[in-house]
Amino acid sequence: EQCCDRPKNTNVRISLPAVCFVWQIAMIILFGIFIRYNEESDTHWIEHKTSNNISSNIENDFYFRYPSFQDVHVMIFVGFGFLMTFLKRYSFGAVGFNFLIAGFGLQWALLMQGWFHSLDPMDGKIKIGVESMINADFCVASCLIAYGAVLGKVSPVQLMVMTLFGVTLYAVEEYIILSLIHARDAGGSMVIHTFGAYYGLSISWMLYRPNLDQSKHRIGSVYHSDVFAMIGTLFLWMFWPSFNSAISDHGDGQHRAAINTYLSLAATVLTSIAISSLSQKTGKLDMVHIQNATLAGGVAVGTAAEFMLMPYGSLIVGFCCGIISTLGYIYITPFMEKYLKIHDTCGIHNLHAMPGVIGGIVGAITAAAASKDVYGTEGLANTFDFMGKWKDMMPTQQGGHQAAGLCVALCFGIGGGIIVGESGVPIRLCVCVFS
Amino acid sequence: EQCCDRPKNTNVRISLPAVCFVWQIAMIILFGIFIRYNEESDTHWIEHKTSNNISSNIENDFYFRYPSFQDVHVMIFVGFGFLMTFLKRYSFGAVGFNFLIAGFGLQWALLMQGWFHSLDPMDGKIKIGVESMINADFCVASCLIAYGAVLGKVSPVQLMVMTLFGVTLYAVEEYIILSLIHARDAGGSMVIHTFGAYYGLSISWMLYRPNLDQSKHRIGSVYHSDVFAMIGTLFLWMFWPSFNSAISDHGDGQHRAAINTYLSLAATVLTSIAISSLSQKTGKLDMVHIQNATLAGGVAVGTAAEFMLMPYGSLIVGFCCGIISTLGYIYITPFMEKYLKIHDTCGIHNLHAMPGVIGGIVGAITAAAASKDVYGTEGLANTFDFMGKWKDMMPTQQGGHQAAGLCVALCFGIGGGIIVGESGVPIRLCVCVFS
Amino acid sequence: EQCCDRPKNTNVRISLPAVCFVWQIAMIILFGIFIRYNEESDTHWIEHKTSNNISSNIENDFYFRYPSFQDVHVMIFVGFGFLMTFLKRYSFGAVGFNFLIAGFGLQWALLMQGWFHSLDPMDGKIKIGVESMINADFCVASCLIAYGAVLGKVSPVQLMVMTLFGVTLYAVEEYIILSLIHARDAGGSMVIHTFGAYYGLSISWMLYRPNLDQSKHRIGSVYHSDVFAMIGTLFLWMFWPSFNSAISDHGDGQHRAAINTYLSLAATVLTSIAISSLSQKTGKLDMVHIQNATLAGGVAVGTAAEFMLMPYGSLIVGFCCGIISTLGYIYITPFMEKYLKIHDTCGIHNLHAMPGVIGGIVGAITAAAASKDVYGTEGLANTFDFMGKWKDMMPTQQGGHQAAGLCVALCFGIGGGIIVGESGVPIRLCVCVFS
Repeated sequence: EQCCDRPKNTNVRISLPAVCFVWQIAMIILFGIFIRYNEESDTHWIEHKTSNNISSNIENDFYFRYPSFQDVHVMIFVGFGFLMTFLKRYSFGAVGFNFLIAGFGLQWALLMQGWFHSLDPMDGKIKIGVESMINADFCVASCLIAYGAVLGKVSPVQLMVMTLFGVTLYAVEEYIILSLIHARDAGGSMVIHTFGAYYGLSISWMLYRPNLDQSKHRIGSVYHSDVFAMIGTLFLWMFWPSFNSAISDHGDGQHRAAINTYLSLAATVLTSIAISSLSQKTGKLDMVHIQNATLAGGVAVGTAAEFMLMPYGSLIVGFCCGIISTLGYIYITPFMEKYLKIHDTCGIHNLHAMPGVIGGIVGAITAAAASKDVYGTEGLANTFDFMGKWKDMMPTQQGGHQAAGLCVALCFGIGGGIIVGESGVPIRLCVCVFS
Repeated sequence: EQCCDRPKNTNVRISLPAVCFVWQIAMIILFGIFIRYNEESDTHWIEHKTSNNISSNIENDFYFRYPSFQDVHVMIFVGFGFLMTFLKRYSFGAVGFNFLIAGFGLQWALLMQGWFHSLDPMDGKIKIGVESMINADFCVASCLIAYGAVLGKVSPVQLMVMTLFGVTLYAVEEYIILSLIHARDAGGSMVIHTFGAYYGLSISWMLYRPNLDQSKHRIGSVYHSDVFAMIGTLFLWMFWPSFNSAISDHGDGQHRAAINTYLSLAATVLTSIAISSLSQKTGKLDMVHIQNATLAGGVAVGTAAEFMLMPYGSLIVGFCCGIISTLGYIYITPFMEKYLKIHDTCGIHNLHAMPGVIGGIVGAITAAAASKDVYGTEGLANTFDFMGKWKDMMPTQQGGHQAAGLCVALCFGIGGGIIVGESGVPIRLCVCVFS
Repeated sequence: EQCCDRPKNTNVRISLPAVCFVWQIAMIILFGIFIRYNEESDTHWIEHKTSNNISSNIENDFYFRYPSFQDVHVMIFVGFGFLMTFLKRYSFGAVGFNFLIAGFGLQWALLMQGWFHSLDPMDGKIKIGVESMINADFCVASCLIAYGAVLGKVSPVQLMVMTLFGVTLYAVEEYIILSLIHARDAGGSMVIHTFGAYYGLSISWMLYRPNLDQSKHRIGSVYHSDVFAMIGTLFLWMFWPSFNSAISDHGDGQHRAAINTYLSLAATVLTSIAISSLSQKTGKLDMVHIQNATLAGGVAVGTAAEFMLMPYGSLIVGFCCGIISTLGYIYITPFMEKYLKIHDTCGIHNLHAMPGVIGGIVGAITAAAASKDVYGTEGLANTFDFMGKWKDMMPTQQGGHQAAGLCVALCFGIGGGIIVGESGVPIRLCVCVFS
C-alpha cells in the first residue's frame, strides 16, 4: 500500500498531465499540417475508381486489410496489455500504461512513418489509409516490447519518453531496412522484434541500480493474475497469423503468411511445454513458459512467413524456437540479471530478442535459397519485389540484404537503447502510480 | 449474502420465466409472419447475381460488412457486458443480464426496424441480411447504455420492459432522424448514444428513492473486478472503428470512418489520463476514468466519422471529449446525484450523453461546412446521399437537418425515459438475483 | 497444495516431454513428405489467376474465409479454453491443456483430413489453404468437446492419446459422412458435436472409478473463476455464426448460415435463463446454465444453418434447445452420474450431445422438406451440391442421407470412445500438474 517514493509522485501529478497535453496538442498541429486521407479513404475514391478502371468497391484496400488490422489492434491493446498483468501488484498498471503509450505512439508513428514512406511529393502531405494504421500499430508494438523489459521500474513519463524516441528510431531503421537496403520483413522479426527487444534491454541495462532488488518483493504473480496474463497470451497467439500477413502482398502473399504462422505457432506450443515440464522437479508446468515461450514461433517466422518457407519449414522454426525460448527463461534470464546487470521483467530477451534474430536469419537463408523452380518466374519477382531499380536482383543477393537488415535492426536497438537509457531521468520505482 | 427483499424474489422466479417464454413465443410467431431472407442471403442469390450482372460472390454485402458485424457483436456482449463488471457484488449479474436483454432486444429490433426500413412492398415481408443484424445490434446498444444508468437497481423483468420500450422508441426515432429528416448518423452519436443515455438517465431519475442509499455499501469495486472491467473497455475501444464504419458506404465511406475513429480514440486516451492524474492528490490514476472516459472519443466522432472530418479534426474531437468526459466523472456525476436526484451507476452521462450531444453538433458543423472543393461533386452527393428527393439539398441545409436530428434524439430519450420510468413497476433492489 | 499422486508425476515429467518431442518430430517428417501450399497460397497464384481468368486478388479464397477462420480460432483457444476455467483449482490447467492438445491436434488434423479430402493425385501431396486451417480447427473442436467430459480426471499424456485417436476417428467419420454418404453438415452438428460429445462420454464411462468421488472436494467453482468461464461462453456465443458459416458456400451460403445461427442463439439465451430461474427456489440463476446452455442453439442449428431453415425456424430450434439443455443440467447429468456411472465434468451431454443429435435431425427434416419453389432450381442444386454423380438426387433422399450421417457420427463417437477409453492407461487424478 505504501508508495515507494512519495515525494516524486507530486511530480507525476504535474509532469504526466503536462506531457500528455503538450504532446497531444503537438500531434494535432502536425496532423493539421501534414496528414490527409489517401485516395482510397477520400471522397474522391469514386472518381479515382472510374479513372483507374476499378470495377468494384471491394477492390478498396480496406477490404483486403481491415480484418487483419483489427486482429493486430487486439494484439497491441489486449495481447500486450494483458500479457503484462501477471504481476500481482501491477495488473492494472500494466494494462493502463500499455494503453497510454500505445495511444500516443500510434499518432507519432503515423507522422514519422509517413514522412519516410508516404509523403506525397505533389502537395507535401502524408496520405494515410488502412495500411498506415497497421504500420502504426506495428511501430507501437516495438515500443511495447521494450516496455516489457522495464515493466514496474519506470515512471509513466519515462515511458512516454521511451516511446517518443522508440518510434522515431523505429521509423528510421524501418526506412533503412525496407527501402534503402530492400530487405523484406512482412511480420517484422527484424524491424519490430529484434529492434524493440534490444532497445528495451539496453534501456534496462542503463537503468540498472543495485537497490532495485528491494522491489523484488513486489514482483510476483498470484493465481488470478496468471489467468489474466493467459488472456494476453492467447490473443497474441491466435491473431499472430494476422500480424504476419497484415501487410504482405494481396492474394497468395497474405494467404501463405497466415498458414506459415499458424503452423509455426502450433509446433512451438508442444516444444515449450515439453521443455517446461522437463525443467521442473515435479513435472508441473511453469506458467511463465506457457504464457510467453509458446509465442516464440510467431516471432521467428515473421520475416520468412511470406516466402515459400514450406509448411514443414514453419514447423521446424516453431520447434526450435519453443526450445530456445523456454531454455532462455530457465538459464539466460537469471544469468543476464546476475552477471550482465540486465533485469528483464517480462523476459523479452527470450520471447522477442532471440526469436527475432533467428527470424532474421531464417529469412535470409530462405531468401537466398529461393529459385524460379519453386516460386515461378513471376512469383519470384512478385514475392521479393524485384521490380524497378531492383529488377536484376538475385535471390542470393537478397539473402545478403536480409542479413544486412538484421544488423541494422540490432545496431539501432542496442545503440538507441543505450543513448535513450543513459540520458534518461534517474530511475524511480513507481509501481504504485496505479495502485 | 442476505437478499435484499426476499419475498419479491418469488415473483422473479415466476415473472422472469413467464416474460421470457411468452415474449420468445411472440417473437417466433411474428418472425414466422414477417421475416424472410433478403436477396443476398436467399438461395435465389445465384439467380439474382445473373440478372443483376454481378460478377462474383465477393460482391455479396456479407463480405463488405461481416467482419465489422462480428466486431460490433463483441462490443455488445463482451464490451458492454464486461464494462459493467466493476461492481464487486455484481460482476456476474452485469454480464448475465446484459446477455439476456441483448438476446431479446436484437430479435425485437429486427422486427421494429424491419417494419420501418426494410418492409418489402411486394409481399409485406421484412427482408433481412447482414446489415439488419448490425442495425439490430446497434439498437440493442442503446438499451445497454440505458442499463448502465440503472445497473444494480432494477429487476431483470424491469430490464426486459425497459428493453421492449427502448427498442420500440429507438426504431421510431431512428426512422424520423434518418429517413424523414434525412440526417446522417453512421456511428449513431445521436441515434444510439444520445437517445440511449437520456433514456436511461430519465428512467433512473423516475426511479430515484432516498433509501437507495442503503445499497451504497453494495456498490464498490475490488481489484480483480476492475481488471475484468478493463476487458470490456479495451474491446469497446479497439472495435469502435468497426462500430462507426459498419454501416457506412462501401469503399471510401467505411475506410474513412475507421480512420477517423481510430484517431479520435487515441487522442482521448491521453487527455483522459491527464485529467485523471491532475484530479488525484497523489497523481495516481482513477480506474473509473481509464475504464470509461477513454471511450468518449469514439462516441463523439460517430456522426462525423464518414464525413471529411480530416485526421486532425478527429484528434481535436477526441482531445476535447477526453477532458469533458473525465471532468464529468469528477464533478457532474456527484452533482447530479446530490442535486438532481439522478443516480447514474456507470456514469453514462459522461461516457454517452455528453459525448453523444457533442458528436451530433460536430456532425452538424462538419456537414454544414462541406463543399465540392473538398468532397468533389460526386463525392459530396455520395457521402450525404443527395439523391432522389434530396438531390438539390445544400450542405448548409444538411447541417440544419443534422441539428434537427439531434433534437429528436434528445426528446425521444428524455420523454421516453420519463414515461417508461414513471409507469414502471416500483423499484426493487435486486442486486442478488445472480448472487 | 498436496499433489494427489506424487510418484506418478515423475512419469509425467518424462512421458509428457517425450510424447511432445516424438510426436512433433513425426509431424515435421510427415509434413515434409506430404504437405504443400495449394494454388491460392502458392507463389504460382499469379499464374493461376491468369490461366483461370480470375480478375482480382480479392477472389482468393483467403478473403472469403479468413475473417471467419480467425473467429473460429478464437473459439477453439479462448472459447473452449476459458469455458473450462470454472473449476477453482484448475483454471490454468484447463486453459493450458486445451492449448496443448489443440496445438497438436490441428497438425495431425491437417494430415488426416488431407489424406481423405485434398490429396492431389498428380503428385501425391496434400494441398492446404485457409479452408484446411478451418477444417483442422473444426476437427480439434471435437476433441476439446470430448476433453470437457474428462476435465480434471486424466493426465496430459492421456489427453494427447485421446486427441491422437480422436482426430483419426474424426477424419474417417467425416469422410464417410460428407463424401461417401453425401450428407451436408456446414456447422458440424453431427460431424463435430455429436461425434465429439459421445467420444468423450464413452471415454469417461470407461474411466469411471468409484474412488473418483474422493476428488469431489476439488471440483467446485469460485466467483472469479465463474467470471473467467463467462469469457469463454461469450466468445463461443458471439463467434458461433462464423463457426457455422466458415466453410459453407461462398455468397448466400455463408450469409444465410450466419443469420440462422445468430437468431437461434438469441432464442436460446431466453429459454435457458427462464428454465434456470424456474429451477431455483430463490429465483436466482445458476451460473452453470448461463455458461453452457445458452450455447445449445448454435450446436443445434449447425447442420441446417446453410439450408432455407427460415428465420423463425432458427428461433424455434434455439427455443427448444435452450429448454432441453438446461433441463439436462438439472436432471440428466446427476442421473447419468448416479445410475450410468458416467461422470461428465462440464456437462457436454447437455451442451453438445443432445443438441448435436437434434441438429442432425433438424438437418434431415429441413433437407427432406426442400423444394424448388423455395430454393429455386439453381439454388437447390447449389445448396445441396446436387452435382456430378449426385445430380439426380431428390431432397427426400437427401433427408435420408442426412439421417444416415447422424447414425455414423453416433457409432464412431460411442464405439471409438469405448475402444480408446478401455485400452487407455489407468486413470490418475492429475488435477495438480499445473498449479
